[in-house]
Amino acid sequence: MQKVVTLKEVTRITATAPMDVSVHGGRAKCLQRLVRLDMPVPTTVALSFSAVHKLAAGDLPDIRSILSHFDEAALLSVRPSSADPDWGGPGAVLNLGMNDTRHAALCDTLGEGAATRLYLKFIQDYAVEVARLDPDAFPMPAVPDRAALNAVLEIYETEMEDAFPQELEVQLTEVLRSMARAWEGTSARLLRSARGAPADAGLGLVVQEMALGVGPGECGTGVVQFVDGDTGKRQVTGRYRRQHQVGADRSDDEGALFLARDKRGPSLQDCAPDAFAALLDYGDLSRRKLRAEMEIKFVLTDGRLSILDAVRVPRSSRGAVRIAVDLARDGIISHEEAVMRVEPQALSELLHRQVSPKANRDVLVRGIAASPGAASGRLVLSAAEAQASAARGEPCILVRRETTPEDIRGMHAAEAVVTLRGGVTSHAAVIGRGLGLPCVVGASDLLIDTRARRITTPDGRTIAEGEVITVDGGAGEVLAGKPAMLEARLDDAFRTLLDWADDFRDIGIRANADTPADAKTARNFAAQGIGLCRTEHMFFETDRVDLMREMIFSQTPEGRAAVLERLLPLQRADFTELFQIMQGQPVCIRLFDPPLHEFLPSDRAGMRDLAEVLDLPLSDVTAQVETLQEYNPMLGMRGVRLGITVPEIYDMQARAIFEATLKASKKGEPVVPEIMIPLVSAMREVELVQARIDAVAAAVRNETGRDFTYRLGVMVETPRACLRAEDIARHADFLSFGTNDLTQMAYGLSRDDAGRFMSTYVQQKVYAEDPFHTLDIEGVGELLSIGAARGRRSRPGVTLSICGEHGGSRAAIAFCRAQGFDYVSCSPFRVPVARLSAAQLALEETRPNLRKLAFR
Amino acid sequence: MQKVVTLKEVTRITATAPMDVSVHGGRAKCLQRLVRLDMPVPTTVALSFSAVHKLAAGDLPDIRSILSHFDEAALLSVRPSSADPDWGGPGAVLNLGMNDTRHAALCDTLGEGAATRLYLKFIQDYAVEVARLDPDAFPMPAVPDRAALNAVLEIYETEMEDAFPQELEVQLTEVLRSMARAWEGTSARLLRSARGAPADAGLGLVVQEMALGVGPGECGTGVVQFVDGDTGKRQVTGRYRRQHQVGADRSDDEGALFLARDKRGPSLQDCAPDAFAALLDYGDLSRRKLRAEMEIKFVLTDGRLSILDAVRVPRSSRGAVRIAVDLARDGIISHEEAVMRVEPQALSELLHRQVSPKANRDVLVRGIAASPGAASGRLVLSAAEAQASAARGEPCILVRRETTPEDIRGMHAAEAVVTLRGGVTSHAAVIGRGLGLPCVVGASDLLIDTRARRITTPDGRTIAEGEVITVDGGAGEVLAGKPAMLEARLDDAFRTLLDWADDFRDIGIRANADTPADAKTARNFAAQGIGLCRTEHMFFETDRVDLMREMIFSQTPEGRAAVLERLLPLQRADFTELFQIMQGQPVCIRLFDPPLHEFLPSDRAGMRDLAEVLDLPLSDVTAQVETLQEYNPMLGMRGVRLGITVPEIYDMQARAIFEATLKASKKGEPVVPEIMIPLVSAMREVELVQARIDAVAAAVRNETGRDFTYRLGVMVETPRACLRAEDIARHADFLSFGTNDLTQMAYGLSRDDAGRFMSTYVQQKVYAEDPFHTLDIEGVGELLSIGAARGRRSRPGVTLSICGEHGGSRAAIAFCRAQGFDYVSCSPFRVPVARLSAAQLALEETRPNLRKLAFR
Repeated sequence: MQKVVTLKEVTRITATAPMDVSVHGGRAKCLQRLVRLDMPVPTTVALSFSAVHKLAAGDLPDIRSILSHFDEAALLSVRPSSADPDWGGPGAVLNLGMNDTRHAALCDTLGEGAATRLYLKFIQDYAVEVARLDPDAFPMPAVPDRAALNAVLEIYETEMEDAFPQELEVQLTEVLRSMARAWEGTSARLLRSARGAPADAGLGLVVQEMALGVGPGECGTGVVQFVDGDTGKRQVTGRYRRQHQVGADRSDDEGALFLARDKRGPSLQDCAPDAFAALLDYGDLSRRKLRAEMEIKFVLTDGRLSILDAVRVPRSSRGAVRIAVDLARDGIISHEEAVMRVEPQALSELLHRQVSPKANRDVLVRGIAASPGAASGRLVLSAAEAQASAARGEPCILVRRETTPEDIRGMHAAEAVVTLRGGVTSHAAVIGRGLGLPCVVGASDLLIDTRARRITTPDGRTIAEGEVITVDGGAGEVLAGKPAMLEARLDDAFRTLLDWADDFRDIGIRANADTPADAKTARNFAAQGIGLCRTEHMFFETDRVDLMREMIFSQTPEGRAAVLERLLPLQRADFTELFQIMQGQPVCIRLFDPPLHEFLPSDRAGMRDLAEVLDLPLSDVTAQVETLQEYNPMLGMRGVRLGITVPEIYDMQARAIFEATLKASKKGEPVVPEIMIPLVSAMREVELVQARIDAVAAAVRNETGRDFTYRLGVMVETPRACLRAEDIARHADFLSFGTNDLTQMAYGLSRDDAGRFMSTYVQQKVYAEDPFHTLDIEGVGELLSIGAARGRRSRPGVTLSICGEHGGSRAAIAFCRAQGFDYVSCSPFRVPVARLSAAQLALEETRPNLRKLAFR
Repeated sequence: MQKVVTLKEVTRITATAPMDVSVHGGRAKCLQRLVRLDMPVPTTVALSFSAVHKLAAGDLPDIRSILSHFDEAALLSVRPSSADPDWGGPGAVLNLGMNDTRHAALCDTLGEGAATRLYLKFIQDYAVEVARLDPDAFPMPAVPDRAALNAVLEIYETEMEDAFPQELEVQLTEVLRSMARAWEGTSARLLRSARGAPADAGLGLVVQEMALGVGPGECGTGVVQFVDGDTGKRQVTGRYRRQHQVGADRSDDEGALFLARDKRGPSLQDCAPDAFAALLDYGDLSRRKLRAEMEIKFVLTDGRLSILDAVRVPRSSRGAVRIAVDLARDGIISHEEAVMRVEPQALSELLHRQVSPKANRDVLVRGIAASPGAASGRLVLSAAEAQASAARGEPCILVRRETTPEDIRGMHAAEAVVTLRGGVTSHAAVIGRGLGLPCVVGASDLLIDTRARRITTPDGRTIAEGEVITVDGGAGEVLAGKPAMLEARLDDAFRTLLDWADDFRDIGIRANADTPADAKTARNFAAQGIGLCRTEHMFFETDRVDLMREMIFSQTPEGRAAVLERLLPLQRADFTELFQIMQGQPVCIRLFDPPLHEFLPSDRAGMRDLAEVLDLPLSDVTAQVETLQEYNPMLGMRGVRLGITVPEIYDMQARAIFEATLKASKKGEPVVPEIMIPLVSAMREVELVQARIDAVAAAVRNETGRDFTYRLGVMVETPRACLRAEDIARHADFLSFGTNDLTQMAYGLSRDDAGRFMSTYVQQKVYAEDPFHTLDIEGVGELLSIGAARGRRSRPGVTLSICGEHGGSRAAIAFCRAQGFDYVSCSPFRVPVARLSAAQLALEETRPNLRKLAFR
């Protein structure tokens, strides 16, 4: 996106020449910054995006005028300079100006070997980048002598039916034109568009005098970093290669020197102490003036230092956090800038163990990355086996076709979970994220053979139960064996950055937490309360599921109430513990939601067991199971529908909540529980539940002689509840939008079944994104807007929030801020990400220029 | 609802006295009409609603002034006169003025028996209505002599501790006060509110001089009708009882005379020819002047005729139609009025065979009335058995837990269908209505024992397969045996009325028709085209389902296309037949909608068969079946999602439609097919399907060298499609709202699963009505409004309609008219009802006073 400014198309880079990233590209702008810091940057001329664009169309710049800036004896390089280096671009071409005459001259000054290597390097670059010849036809000869050079020149001449160009003017013209055209080519366009470049992204070029790095005296090329990019800690690293034109890669130590003095081998500090000292100064200077940790490319020519380039030092997520925090602590950047400099998603990596980037990855199958982190363990194919394995102290990985509530205890026992079906909001994925358990779903190419107790990969390998595998939930991959891992660690820099973020954040962040462990995680990540506590898991534990089943088989309200009476103390204890952990913060409890059939066994053996336990004929049990079966459980008898038709459940839950409130309030600040009614579609549903809950509250107050308050609200998760929010809000202190179900209903799309075609749909851009992953602003978002506006109409101060899986995403937070919502609630492990995203969104609004200050 | 007019509270009824139904009630107003026609109505005084209301509060009217209108010797009656006789009211009290003195005098003129009966009747009425004593304590004695009279008077005195009142003034005061209070009592209020009366409904009272009907000469009481209420044909009927005060009930012939001369017995025409002739005159007079067929109550006293009352003659639905049409044909009422006088729902009864009202009903079980009509047949418990039974020519009734698409051929073979599960929009109900098949669903109290091949009723009776039962789909009942039936008959009056209705109707009515039989029915009922042709049934026929299965197991697009190639001629023939039947009218074809798993067997045996047919290992078949299984099929891989991921199906259908279009167009007017895309939630879905269908059209034009046109539209049935209608309408010639699915998704409620709690929900008024039965204007209706408005934004002339099950209902038609929709589409058998409803709605708007003209 080219700015309309009157900048020259060809500019020699000086401290004062007008220069802009959006006109000349990042490399040109960066070089100017280095010039301004008085670093020894070789003479450089920048061609603007516009000049390069014209060039590609055949409109040549004034080559002589470009060349007029350089010493006649100089060799030149041409490098790309786009607005963002990640968008790719043509390769650099070095040593323009080399020809037979110059080669002969340099053989005298540099020696034949060095001079020939310079010429050969140029011929290689030119043949590949300009003449588009096969790189394999132009290898660097083992002995770079005159014979070898001649052989190469002959190959060029044979292929091109023309001699290698000897005129610098011709060389430069062809190199510039070729690089300009390469940028406009289809494959380059597709590539950069895939990396997020706009359609009209421009390319600048810089023509620079070569600092040769070869020849007599101390010559070489190097790169220096002043922090460790992995940890972000200050430490001089980098490599230097003598008599080389191309800098040493950081990972390629062969023949390279360390920068600082090092026991392991020779160093630049030893052989060129002045240059090393100058680099340290430049590092300090650039840190202070460019306000970033830089990686500097340099060349020594006969001991003379040239600075070729500087970019922000490559860094891991952990490194990025510490670098930003340290820069702010040293007063170089503000807290605001530090907060803006870290990609929120990067925090997620810090919270989870990762497969080491250096480890060998033997991928068994790929699926959908559903919950981040990595874990290894023995393959198990059933929840029971997972529990048994955990009991033996053997870590395990649970692989299932799909998970159901019956698998939850098995999931608790496993280190990670893999399912063949489902998408990012399937049962396994939701529970996995809630538990912070690595999870891959939709690994549909895997086959499970439960009889033979093994799995088969798409390439036909079989893994038996008990063999060790690894799940990389962030990459969506299942790996063979047990590769090396990087442990998760939350250091002080991480906490400091989030504390600063909270200073700027203007929307609340709560966590979805169902268990004491979740709640502790939420508290640890400084969530501002629990936005969604699902209570159903509390009924799936062994002792409780039996009671639930007994209740389901009770024929009368009294019978049900009697069974629920026995569940009451357990449920009360659940809530008491939660309230105590979250003391001083709100806890929003969603009343019982799932259909009752989830509590019944689905197989014959389970039904036989149940018949025995309940002392009923098997036919009674199967009949009840059949009666409760549903065609579309998502749209069936659950949530408030159950609350109204079997009101004893909500009665018991309300009592447990109130009694726990009183119990937990004894030890500290009074607890104010929030009670949330799920799946509401009509105002009267709220009215009826409210009446019963108020009655339970009155009874508890009466029995205990103590007072307490509570808030009653609605989980808005049907389109109709959005439309009728004005009515509904008359009976609701808060409206919390359940964006999962709302998405399902707006689209008429079950999240559990969408996996089968969602990838096709997103590929064909039928949906811009998977709406279960990225909040659909156009459709679901409008339902939220309608619901919020109407809710406020009848109750201006109604508390508004979203509590679906979307809650932690940047897009959803942006939407909620724009709508003036009070908070978002997300998985505990997404809370840090959400806190940072929310702060960045607030800063982008209040300090719109802030992002530009960050050095690219 | 009392008008603010200055009408007197006590008014003697004369031809000119101001009198209004909303002030004095219907009986008073009717009596005035009779007075105006110079009929011999005894002297009558009317008390207004206001007078009676004050009376209940203790504020007495001037009794003397009332009595001043009557002869001192007259006995009086008091009768209720509310705005609508259906609202109930206190019973009449006869013979006020009777006391010991008058009794003695009448013994002389009428004889002791008659005089005593008059007194006893008054004492009875007074004791029950005024003194609130037990009616059993006051039986009419076998011999009504003075001794019996004294006994009764003594009982009264003992119970009341007071003598029976002898003063007419006291009698009248107490009777009036008692009747006024009864009207204000709680039970009367509840009763009339349940019958639709407003909270402030008023009661008028009429005080009338008694025409005794007993005594010397020709004395008696009777009722006469001038049409047969069952058929509506003109014919004098009625009964007359000599020496009786209370008219003969129509069904109680004992001791009664016929009106006209009759071979079966004595008649009024024989014994009082003048009175009979006068009655005929009055009938004719009232028909012309009151513009209605009346039932007249009369009394003869010594041969002198008195007219006590006249009401619209009670009539069947069939009778109502013929009476209205005959009145209009005779120029007595306008066509508009005739159209307004028939209840649309009543037409529905005429279209279906009914259990005779006179038949004995032995109810086996009650369920939900899902499709009207009645049928008898042998009980069968499987679709296969239904087909076998039909093949043997034995009518059968199919009873299933629920029906699935696999049962469709069985349903075709059955006379009626009963299911234990589901609601009014379950599969069985929808198909039943489509086929015009009587259907009862949700008969959850029935038990099916498939092994023992029998059903058990709630009271423990068992019915074996093969025994004859009867389904009354209009009443929602299953009956034992084979009661007498009334056949359906569409007479000329029915057709005439609907032709008139069409003159006033201003919204189109189409039919939902899937088969040639449906289409013929639609055409027969003058539907204006097919609004929804579901194509999936075409794939469930034996030869086709096998091809569908073969297609499902094809692994490549080419393989699928090859199988579909074989389906093409069958599908083309389907459409050609439909187009020919509907020649000249639009046919809207919905592309393939159901999930593919509906075509696969669900049981082990079926899978084994399929493996054999396809020559595949059983494990491949079970794996594919498992792969296609869905958690929530309603929200799964169906509709346009299938159209995009397996595009070969829509390609084949489009080709079949276009080739059929050309074929059918050869024989008459060109056919313009409408193609409708189901389950759309995003504009891009439409764009992608449109591109392929346009390509198929181009190919067919190219191959045949012939041109044709078609219209492409969208079935709007997801909330998101409503919200995004502006985008979607850019690619859609028409938007047809599928209110079934839209209701499911707006509420998050599966129609197949809602049956389990819907009755509780409606009883507790959580939902005002079952939203699958009555269009939810507040929620779903708003989605329709949003969709319509937005669709028009991008395409102002876009054709709008609804095609769900709601289409035929009055509320839905009213809504669609208000929104300016083009048409509604409903089951073929609802088309007549919809035509009449639509006409009435148009007339109510354009001629708002029309309804008031109809005599109540």
